[in-house]
Amino acid sequence: MMMKKNKKGLLTVISGFSGAGKGTIVKKLISEHNDYALSVSMTTRKPREGEVNGREYFFVNHEDFEKTIAEGGLIEHAQYCDNYYGTPKDYVFNMLDAGKNVILEIEINGALQIKKKFPESLLLFITPPSAEELKRRLVSRGTETMDVIEKRLSRAGEESEGIEAYDYIVVNDDLDKCVEDIQRIVEDAHLSPVRCKDFIEDIRNELKAFSKGEK
Amino acid sequence: MMMKKNKKGLLTVISGFSGAGKGTIVKKLISEHNDYALSVSMTTRKPREGEVNGREYFFVNHEDFEKTIAEGGLIEHAQYCDNYYGTPKDYVFNMLDAGKNVILEIEINGALQIKKKFPESLLLFITPPSAEELKRRLVSRGTETMDVIEKRLSRAGEESEGIEAYDYIVVNDDLDKCVEDIQRIVEDAHLSPVRCKDFIEDIRNELKAFSKGEK
Repeated sequence: MMMKKNKKGLLTVISGFSGAGKGTIVKKLISEHNDYALSVSMTTRKPREGEVNGREYFFVNHEDFEKTIAEGGLIEHAQYCDNYYGTPKDYVFNMLDAGKNVILEIEINGALQIKKKFPESLLLFITPPSAEELKRRLVSRGTETMDVIEKRLSRAGEESEGIEAYDYIVVNDDLDKCVEDIQRIVEDAHLSPVRCKDFIEDIRNELKAFSKGEK
Repeated sequence: MMMKKNKKGLLTVISGFSGAGKGTIVKKLISEHNDYALSVSMTTRKPREGEVNGREYFFVNHEDFEKTIAEGGLIEHAQYCDNYYGTPKDYVFNMLDAGKNVILEIEINGALQIKKKFPESLLLFITPPSAEELKRRLVSRGTETMDVIEKRLSRAGEESEGIEAYDYIVVNDDLDKCVEDIQRIVEDAHLSPVRCKDFIEDIRNELKAFSKGEK
Protein backbone atom coordinates (compact mmCIF):
# COMPACT_ATOMS: atom_id res chain seq x y z
CA MET A 1 0.00 0.00 0.00
CA MET A 2 2.47 2.59 1.19
CA MET A 3 5.14 1.29 -1.09
CA LYS A 4 3.62 2.33 -4.39
CA LYS A 5 6.17 5.06 -4.97
CA ASN A 6 8.99 2.85 -3.77
CA LYS A 7 8.23 -0.16 -5.83
CA LYS A 8 11.62 0.03 -7.30
CA GLY A 9 13.37 -3.27 -6.87
CA LEU A 10 15.78 -3.94 -4.07
CA LEU A 11 19.51 -4.25 -4.66
CA THR A 12 20.24 -7.54 -2.89
CA VAL A 13 23.73 -8.87 -2.29
CA ILE A 14 24.16 -12.57 -1.64
CA SER A 15 27.48 -13.70 -0.21
CA GLY A 16 28.43 -16.75 1.76
CA PHE A 17 30.96 -19.48 2.29
CA SER A 18 32.05 -21.49 -0.69
CA GLY A 19 29.97 -24.65 -0.31
CA ALA A 20 27.02 -22.85 1.26
CA GLY A 21 24.94 -23.44 -1.84
CA LYS A 22 24.60 -19.84 -3.07
CA GLY A 23 24.41 -20.81 -6.73
CA THR A 24 21.57 -23.28 -6.23
CA ILE A 25 19.66 -20.87 -4.02
CA VAL A 26 19.92 -18.02 -6.48
CA LYS A 27 18.88 -20.22 -9.39
CA LYS A 28 15.80 -21.38 -7.52
CA LEU A 29 14.90 -17.87 -6.41
CA ILE A 30 15.15 -16.51 -9.95
CA SER A 31 13.32 -19.38 -11.58
CA GLU A 32 10.40 -19.33 -9.14
CA HIS A 33 9.88 -15.61 -8.76
CA ASN A 34 9.77 -13.28 -11.70
CA ASP A 35 10.33 -10.17 -9.60
CA TYR A 36 13.98 -11.15 -9.19
CA ALA A 37 16.79 -10.64 -11.68
CA LEU A 38 20.35 -11.89 -11.48
CA SER A 39 23.13 -9.50 -12.26
CA VAL A 40 25.84 -10.99 -14.47
CA SER A 41 29.36 -9.98 -13.44
CA MET A 42 32.13 -8.89 -15.75
CA THR A 43 35.45 -10.68 -15.39
CA THR A 44 38.88 -10.93 -16.94
CA ARG A 45 39.27 -14.58 -16.05
CA LYS A 46 39.08 -17.08 -18.89
CA PRO A 47 35.78 -18.91 -19.45
CA ARG A 48 35.70 -22.49 -18.12
CA GLU A 49 34.27 -25.36 -20.10
CA GLY A 50 30.53 -24.90 -20.55
CA GLU A 51 30.48 -21.25 -19.48
CA VAL A 52 28.71 -18.90 -21.85
CA ASN A 53 29.56 -15.22 -22.31
CA GLY A 54 26.73 -13.14 -20.88
CA ARG A 55 25.31 -16.03 -18.86
CA GLU A 56 27.91 -16.96 -16.23
CA TYR A 57 29.97 -13.83 -16.83
CA PHE A 58 30.73 -11.16 -19.36
CA PHE A 59 34.24 -12.20 -20.33
CA VAL A 60 36.49 -9.30 -21.28
CA ASN A 61 40.22 -8.57 -21.37
CA HIS A 62 42.11 -6.45 -18.85
CA GLU A 63 42.10 -3.40 -21.05
CA ASP A 64 38.35 -3.40 -21.57
CA PHE A 65 37.76 -4.01 -17.87
CA GLU A 66 39.89 -1.07 -16.89
CA LYS A 67 38.21 1.09 -19.49
CA THR A 68 34.83 0.16 -17.99
CA ILE A 69 36.08 1.11 -14.50
CA ALA A 70 37.38 4.44 -15.82
CA GLU A 71 34.04 5.19 -17.46
CA GLY A 72 32.21 4.54 -14.18
CA GLY A 73 30.48 1.56 -15.71
CA LEU A 74 30.78 -0.71 -12.66
CA ILE A 75 29.05 -0.31 -9.30
CA GLU A 76 31.69 -2.45 -7.57
CA HIS A 77 34.75 -4.38 -8.54
CA ALA A 78 37.49 -6.38 -6.90
CA GLN A 79 40.54 -8.40 -7.82
CA TYR A 80 41.11 -12.07 -6.98
CA CYS A 81 44.06 -14.14 -8.15
CA ASP A 82 45.12 -11.55 -10.73
CA ASN A 83 41.66 -11.35 -12.24
CA TYR A 84 39.11 -8.58 -12.08
CA TYR A 85 35.47 -9.16 -11.20
CA GLY A 86 32.86 -6.41 -11.28
CA THR A 87 29.17 -5.55 -11.57
CA PRO A 88 28.06 -3.59 -14.66
CA LYS A 89 25.93 -0.63 -13.69
CA ASP A 90 23.40 -0.34 -16.50
CA TYR A 91 21.76 -3.74 -16.16
CA VAL A 92 21.38 -3.29 -12.40
CA PHE A 93 19.84 0.16 -12.67
CA ASN A 94 17.49 -0.79 -15.48
CA MET A 95 16.23 -3.85 -13.64
CA LEU A 96 15.76 -1.93 -10.36
CA ASP A 97 13.76 0.73 -12.19
CA ALA A 98 11.65 -2.01 -13.72
CA GLY A 99 10.80 -3.15 -10.17
CA LYS A 100 13.01 -6.23 -10.11
CA ASN A 101 14.98 -7.16 -7.01
CA VAL A 102 18.46 -7.48 -8.45
CA ILE A 103 20.67 -10.19 -6.97
CA LEU A 104 24.42 -9.69 -6.89
CA GLU A 105 26.27 -12.85 -5.97
CA ILE A 106 29.54 -11.29 -4.84
CA GLU A 107 32.12 -11.50 -2.09
CA ILE A 108 32.55 -9.31 0.95
CA ASN A 109 34.78 -6.64 -0.61
CA GLY A 110 32.20 -5.99 -3.29
CA ALA A 111 29.38 -6.24 -0.76
CA LEU A 112 30.93 -3.52 1.38
CA GLN A 113 31.38 -1.25 -1.66
CA ILE A 114 27.73 -1.74 -2.52
CA LYS A 115 26.52 -0.95 1.01
CA LYS A 116 28.61 2.19 1.07
CA LYS A 117 27.34 3.47 -2.27
CA PHE A 118 23.76 2.24 -1.83
CA PRO A 119 22.79 2.28 1.86
CA GLU A 120 19.37 0.97 0.87
CA SER A 121 20.90 -2.24 -0.49
CA LEU A 122 20.29 -5.48 1.40
CA LEU A 123 23.22 -7.73 2.32
CA LEU A 124 22.54 -11.42 2.93
CA PHE A 125 25.07 -13.95 4.08
CA ILE A 126 24.36 -17.61 3.35
CA THR A 127 25.82 -20.28 5.59
CA PRO A 128 25.33 -23.97 6.26
CA PRO A 129 24.04 -24.74 9.77
CA SER A 130 27.59 -25.35 11.03
CA ALA A 131 31.24 -25.41 9.97
CA GLU A 132 31.15 -29.17 10.37
CA GLU A 133 28.39 -29.33 7.77
CA LEU A 134 30.31 -26.97 5.48
CA LYS A 135 33.26 -29.34 5.58
CA ARG A 136 31.02 -32.34 5.01
CA ARG A 137 29.53 -30.71 1.90
CA LEU A 138 32.90 -29.75 0.47
CA VAL A 139 34.22 -33.27 1.04
CA SER A 140 31.15 -35.03 -0.31
CA ARG A 141 31.34 -33.15 -3.61
CA GLY A 142 34.30 -35.42 -4.27
CA THR A 143 35.66 -33.01 -6.87
CA GLU A 144 38.29 -31.33 -4.75
CA THR A 145 41.52 -32.51 -3.14
CA MET A 146 41.82 -32.25 0.67
CA ASP A 147 44.32 -29.49 0.04
CA VAL A 148 41.77 -27.38 -1.84
CA ILE A 149 39.12 -28.15 0.76
CA GLU A 150 41.40 -26.94 3.52
CA LYS A 151 42.07 -23.74 1.60
CA ARG A 152 38.34 -23.17 1.24
CA LEU A 153 37.76 -23.75 4.94
CA SER A 154 40.56 -21.37 5.78
CA ARG A 155 39.05 -18.80 3.41
CA ALA A 156 35.67 -19.39 5.11
CA GLY A 157 37.36 -18.55 8.41
CA GLU A 158 38.48 -15.21 6.95
CA GLU A 159 35.07 -14.54 5.46
CA SER A 160 33.38 -15.28 8.77
CA GLU A 161 35.12 -12.21 10.21
CA GLY A 162 32.98 -10.00 7.99
CA ILE A 163 29.56 -11.43 8.85
CA GLU A 164 28.50 -8.48 11.01
CA ALA A 165 28.51 -6.25 7.92
CA TYR A 166 25.53 -8.18 6.57
CA ASP A 167 21.92 -7.37 7.30
CA TYR A 168 20.83 -10.97 7.69
CA ILE A 169 22.32 -14.42 8.03
CA VAL A 170 20.38 -17.07 6.19
CA VAL A 171 21.03 -20.69 7.02
CA ASN A 172 20.90 -23.06 4.10
CA ASP A 173 19.84 -26.26 5.77
CA ASP A 174 16.71 -26.94 3.78
CA LEU A 175 16.78 -25.36 0.30
CA ASP A 176 13.05 -24.53 0.12
CA LYS A 177 13.07 -22.96 3.56
CA CYS A 178 16.18 -20.98 2.71
CA VAL A 179 14.68 -19.53 -0.48
CA GLU A 180 11.47 -18.70 1.42
CA ASP A 181 13.51 -16.95 4.11
CA ILE A 182 15.27 -14.83 1.54
CA GLN A 183 12.06 -13.91 -0.17
CA ARG A 184 10.44 -12.91 3.11
CA ILE A 185 13.45 -10.86 4.17
CA VAL A 186 13.45 -9.02 0.84
CA GLU A 187 9.73 -8.29 1.23
CA ASP A 188 10.30 -6.94 4.75
CA ALA A 189 13.27 -4.91 3.68
CA HIS A 190 10.97 -2.69 1.64
CA LEU A 191 9.53 -1.56 5.00
CA SER A 192 12.79 -0.26 6.40
CA PRO A 193 12.88 3.57 6.69
CA VAL A 194 15.97 3.81 4.48
CA ARG A 195 13.88 2.22 1.72
CA CYS A 196 10.68 4.21 2.10
CA LYS A 197 11.98 7.73 2.11
CA ASP A 198 9.27 8.99 -0.23
CA PHE A 199 6.53 7.66 2.01
CA ILE A 200 8.08 9.28 5.10
CA GLU A 201 8.49 12.58 3.29
CA ASP A 202 4.91 12.53 2.05
CA ILE A 203 3.48 11.89 5.48
CA ARG A 204 5.66 14.62 7.02
CA ASN A 205 4.61 17.15 4.42
CA GLU A 206 0.96 16.27 4.83
CA LEU A 207 1.20 16.61 8.62
CA LYS A 208 2.95 19.98 8.21
CA ALA A 209 0.21 21.13 5.88
CA PHE A 210 -2.38 20.19 8.53
CA SER A 211 -0.69 22.22 11.21
CA LYS A 212 -0.44 25.21 8.88
CA GLY A 213 -4.16 24.85 8.41
CA GLU A 214 -3.80 24.25 4.69
CA LYS A 215 -6.10 21.26 4.81
CA MET B 1 17.81 -24.50 13.07
CA MET B 2 20.66 -22.12 13.71
CA MET B 3 18.70 -20.21 16.24
CA LYS B 4 18.47 -22.85 18.94
CA LYS B 5 20.86 -21.10 21.26
CA ASN B 6 19.30 -17.75 20.53
CA LYS B 7 15.74 -18.70 21.07
CA LYS B 8 15.44 -16.04 23.65
CA GLY B 9 12.54 -13.79 22.81
CA LEU B 10 12.97 -10.53 20.98
CA LEU B 11 12.53 -7.20 22.72
CA THR B 12 10.11 -5.46 20.37
CA VAL B 13 9.15 -1.82 20.65
CA ILE B 14 5.94 -0.68 19.02
CA SER B 15 5.45 3.05 18.59
CA GLY B 16 3.30 5.03 16.24
CA PHE B 17 0.99 7.95 15.76
CA SER B 18 -1.95 8.28 18.09
CA GLY B 19 -4.77 6.94 15.96
CA ALA B 20 -2.59 4.43 14.12
CA GLY B 21 -4.29 1.54 15.90
CA LYS B 22 -1.37 0.30 18.04
CA GLY B 23 -3.59 -0.94 20.85
CA THR B 24 -5.76 -3.07 18.54
CA ILE B 25 -2.73 -4.47 16.73
CA VAL B 26 -0.95 -5.45 19.92
CA LYS B 27 -4.08 -7.06 21.35
CA LYS B 28 -4.54 -9.16 18.24
CA LEU B 29 -0.88 -10.14 18.11
CA ILE B 30 -0.86 -11.26 21.74
CA SER B 31 -4.17 -13.09 21.56
CA GLU B 32 -3.30 -15.02 18.39
CA HIS B 33 0.31 -15.92 19.09
CA ASN B 34 1.42 -17.32 22.40
CA ASP B 35 5.07 -16.54 21.79
CA TYR B 36 4.37 -12.87 22.42
CA ALA B 37 4.00 -11.15 25.77
CA LEU B 38 2.97 -7.57 26.46
CA SER B 39 4.97 -5.58 28.94
CA VAL B 40 2.81 -3.57 31.34
CA SER B 41 4.19 -0.10 32.06
CA MET B 42 4.43 1.57 35.42
CA THR B 43 2.95 5.06 35.73
CA THR B 44 2.22 7.77 38.23
CA ARG B 45 -0.87 8.96 36.40
CA LYS B 46 -4.23 8.21 37.97
CA PRO B 47 -6.18 5.20 36.65
CA ARG B 48 -9.03 6.09 34.31
CA GLU B 49 -12.43 4.53 34.58
CA GLY B 50 -12.24 0.82 33.75
CA GLU B 51 -8.46 0.59 34.04
CA VAL B 52 -7.15 -2.19 36.24
CA ASN B 53 -3.88 -2.07 38.17
CA GLY B 54 -1.46 -4.56 36.59
CA ARG B 55 -3.45 -4.79 33.35
CA GLU B 56 -3.33 -1.37 31.67
CA TYR B 57 -0.58 -0.09 33.98
CA PHE B 58 1.02 -0.60 37.33
CA PHE B 59 -0.26 2.50 39.10
CA VAL B 60 2.15 3.86 41.69
CA ASN B 61 2.85 7.21 43.34
CA HIS B 62 5.76 9.51 42.52
CA GLU B 63 7.81 8.35 45.47
CA ASP B 64 7.57 4.68 44.56
CA PHE B 65 8.30 5.40 40.92
CA GLU B 66 11.45 7.33 41.81
CA LYS B 67 12.50 4.58 44.18
CA THR B 68 12.12 2.06 41.34
CA ILE B 69 14.27 4.24 39.07
CA ALA B 70 16.92 4.53 41.79
CA GLU B 71 16.99 0.78 42.26
CA GLY B 72 17.51 0.23 38.54
CA GLY B 73 14.16 -1.47 38.27
CA LEU B 74 13.15 0.16 34.94
CA ILE B 75 14.71 -0.40 31.53
CA GLU B 76 13.38 2.94 30.26
CA HIS B 77 11.28 5.75 31.58
CA ALA B 78 10.04 9.12 30.47
CA GLN B 79 7.89 11.97 31.72
CA TYR B 80 4.78 13.31 29.98
CA CYS B 81 2.45 15.97 31.38
CA ASP B 82 3.98 15.73 34.87
CA ASN B 83 3.58 11.98 35.02
CA TYR B 84 6.16 9.26 34.86
CA TYR B 85 5.88 6.24 32.58
CA GLY B 86 8.36 3.37 32.61
CA THR B 87 9.00 -0.29 31.82
CA PRO B 88 9.69 -2.63 34.76
CA LYS B 89 12.78 -4.72 34.13
CA ASP B 90 12.00 -8.06 35.77
CA TYR B 91 8.93 -8.96 33.75
CA VAL B 92 10.69 -8.15 30.49
CA PHE B 93 13.80 -10.18 31.31
CA ASN B 94 11.84 -13.16 32.60
CA MET B 95 9.64 -13.29 29.53
CA LEU B 96 12.60 -12.92 27.14
CA ASP B 97 14.38 -15.76 28.90
CA ALA B 98 11.25 -17.84 28.56
CA GLY B 99 11.43 -17.31 24.79
CA LYS B 100 8.63 -14.78 24.50
CA ASN B 101 8.90 -11.79 22.20
CA VAL B 102 8.14 -8.97 24.59
CA ILE B 103 6.18 -6.03 23.20
CA LEU B 104 6.74 -2.58 24.65
CA GLU B 105 4.14 -0.10 23.47
CA ILE B 106 6.06 3.10 24.19
CA GLU B 107 6.90 6.47 22.66
CA ILE B 108 10.03 7.54 20.87
CA ASN B 109 12.00 8.71 23.90
CA GLY B 110 11.60 5.34 25.54
CA ALA B 111 12.23 3.58 22.24
CA LEU B 112 15.57 5.35 21.83
CA GLN B 113 16.61 4.44 25.39
CA ILE B 114 15.78 0.81 24.66
CA LYS B 115 17.76 0.74 21.40
CA LYS B 116 20.76 2.27 23.15
CA LYS B 117 20.72 -0.22 26.02
CA PHE B 118 19.69 -3.23 23.94
CA PRO B 119 21.03 -2.93 20.38
CA GLU B 120 19.39 -6.26 19.59
CA SER B 121 15.93 -4.82 20.25
CA LEU B 122 13.58 -4.29 17.32
CA LEU B 123 11.85 -0.93 16.82
CA LEU B 124 8.62 -0.84 14.83
CA PHE B 125 6.71 2.27 13.89
CA ILE B 126 3.02 1.89 13.07
CA THR B 127 1.37 4.35 10.76
CA PRO B 128 -1.85 4.66 8.78
CA PRO B 129 -1.33 4.71 5.02
CA SER B 130 -1.38 8.53 4.97
CA ALA B 131 -1.75 11.59 7.19
CA GLU B 132 -5.13 12.17 5.56
CA GLU B 133 -6.26 8.76 6.77
CA LEU B 134 -4.86 9.46 10.25
CA LYS B 135 -6.98 12.61 10.43
CA ARG B 136 -10.02 10.76 9.14
CA ARG B 137 -9.66 8.10 11.85
CA LEU B 138 -9.23 10.63 14.61
CA VAL B 139 -12.27 12.58 13.42
CA SER B 140 -14.46 9.51 12.90
CA ARG B 141 -13.95 8.35 16.49
CA GLY B 142 -16.23 11.23 17.37
CA THR B 143 -14.90 11.30 20.91
CA GLU B 144 -12.50 14.21 20.57
CA THR B 145 -12.93 17.92 19.94
CA MET B 146 -11.31 19.41 16.84
CA ASP B 147 -8.93 21.15 19.20
CA VAL B 148 -7.69 17.84 20.61
CA ILE B 149 -7.51 16.32 17.13
CA GLU B 150 -5.35 19.19 15.96
CA LYS B 151 -3.05 18.72 18.92
CA ARG B 152 -2.71 15.04 18.07
CA LEU B 153 -1.92 15.80 14.46
CA SER B 154 0.63 18.35 15.52
CA ARG B 155 2.14 15.78 17.92
CA ALA B 156 2.16 13.29 15.01
CA GLY B 157 4.16 15.83 13.03
CA GLU B 158 6.75 15.91 15.81
CA GLU B 159 6.80 12.13 16.10
CA SER B 160 7.28 11.75 12.36
CA GLU B 161 10.69 13.43 12.75
CA GLY B 162 11.92 10.37 14.63
CA ILE B 163 10.84 7.67 12.20
CA GLU B 164 14.37 6.98 10.92
CA ALA B 165 15.33 5.64 14.34
CA TYR B 166 13.01 2.70 13.80
CA ASP B 167 13.97 -0.55 12.14
CA TYR B 168 10.72 -0.92 10.21
CA ILE B 169 7.66 1.07 9.31
CA VAL B 170 4.49 -0.98 9.34
CA VAL B 171 1.43 0.43 7.65
CA ASN B 172 -1.84 -0.30 9.37
CA ASP B 173 -4.24 -0.30 6.47
CA ASP B 174 -5.64 -3.77 6.86
CA LEU B 175 -5.41 -5.07 10.43
CA ASP B 176 -4.76 -8.73 9.53
CA LYS B 177 -2.04 -7.81 7.06
CA CYS B 178 -0.45 -5.46 9.57
CA VAL B 179 -0.28 -8.14 12.28
CA GLU B 180 1.12 -10.61 9.75
CA ASP B 181 3.76 -8.07 8.71
CA ILE B 182 4.84 -7.59 12.31
CA GLN B 183 5.02 -11.29 12.95
CA ARG B 184 7.12 -11.86 9.84
CA ILE B 185 9.45 -9.00 10.68
CA VAL B 186 9.96 -10.36 14.20
CA GLU B 187 10.71 -13.80 12.80
CA ASP B 188 13.25 -12.38 10.36
CA ALA B 189 14.81 -10.19 13.00
CA HIS B 190 16.13 -13.32 14.69
CA LEU B 191 18.36 -13.71 11.60
CA SER B 192 20.13 -10.39 11.98
CA PRO B 193 23.80 -10.75 13.03
CA VAL B 194 23.27 -8.64 16.13
CA ARG B 195 20.78 -11.27 17.28
CA CYS B 196 22.71 -14.42 16.47
CA LYS B 197 26.03 -13.69 18.08
CA ASP B 198 26.32 -17.18 19.57
CA PHE B 199 25.85 -18.80 16.19
CA ILE B 200 28.47 -16.58 14.58
CA GLU B 201 30.91 -17.25 17.39
CA ASP B 202 30.36 -21.00 17.17
CA ILE B 203 30.99 -21.10 13.45
CA ARG B 204 34.11 -18.95 13.78
CA ASN B 205 35.52 -21.15 16.51
CA GLU B 206 34.78 -24.30 14.54
CA LEU B 207 36.48 -22.87 11.45
CA LYS B 208 39.48 -21.85 13.53
CA ALA B 209 39.68 -25.35 14.96
CA PHE B 210 39.73 -26.75 11.41
CA SER B 211 42.64 -24.57 10.35
CA LYS B 212 44.58 -25.53 13.46
CA GLY B 213 44.00 -29.09 12.35
CA GLU B 214 42.12 -29.92 15.53
CA LYS B 215 39.35 -31.60 13.62
